Amino acid sequence: MLSIYSDDYFMQQALKEARQALLKGEIPVGAVVVCDNKIIARGHNQTEQLQDVTAHAEMIALTAAANNLGSKYLPECTLYVTLEPCVMCAGALFWTQIGRVVYGAADDKRGFMRFGKTLLHPKASIEYGVLETECAQIISGFFKSKRG
Amino acid sequence: MLSIYSDDYFMQQALKEARQALLKGEIPVGAVVVCDNKIIARGHNQTEQLQDVTAHAEMIALTAAANNLGSKYLPECTLYVTLEPCVMCAGALFWTQIGRVVYGAADDKRGFMRFGKTLLHPKASIEYGVLETECAQIISGFFKSKRG
Repeated sequence: MLSIYSDDYFMQQALKEARQALLKGEIPVGAVVVCDNKIIARGHNQTEQLQDVTAHAEMIALTAAANNLGSKYLPECTLYVTLEPCVMCAGALFWTQIGRVVYGAADDKRGFMRFGKTLLHPKASIEYGVLETECAQIISGFFKSKRG
Repeated sequence: MLSIYSDDYFMQQALKEARQALLKGEIPVGAVVVCDNKIIARGHNQTEQLQDVTAHAEMIALTAAANNLGSKYLPECTLYVTLEPCVMCAGALFWTQIGRVVYGAADDKRGFMRFGKTLLHPKASIEYGVLETECAQIISGFFKSKRG
């Protein structure tokens, strides 16, 4: 059972966003930004729809979170994302000074962890593997369906 | 004298963008994207105005270039930017598969080169130091004026 306000709960919300991306034929990645146990922003990958490589779930959610708070810094916030952020998104997370990053599935090929945690802000804490199986399955299922 | 279609010419155009940022009280960084010797997109730093850390000159120019071409990939394009791109912007440049990146001044503290060229696409060529003095001066002048 999911208890509200848990990492599992918020990752389920990120997975909901990933499913929105899937419905649009996008690589299914979803993200939410949480502040004081409230979801203040959501995003899902829209790179195909917008024909814009910068339209990753995390970038959309970070911009929306900044709009919501009226501040470009998010030290009290946590980003939940279904897939390990890429270098671009890690760089954006650095600039936001976000306090915590939680991701589900690893991305060994494109994830930022190839370059180490120093890509994020030194004060940021990182957690991974939350709902890892579900987060990995939605991505692997997408690529399997693409291969026919 | 500037001959048209030279790196110097396009960097001057990026400097024009940096001056736009300066007028708005932003850290003065400017960028243009060039394809077939034509400027197809421009951008300048708008992080303060938009209260959005992702609103770097490069990100704005890359999104505008993709809109202009109707393609999220920019292998035939060159990005000119007055300051060495940060990790976020290098990550975005990677995803665009941009063919060439030219920057003016180095950014030893926040530039992507701390992590090496592997942050960019393996096919991308990099050049730096074009109009380096002007590009460095506009930034250092800004920070000097901030310190009063």
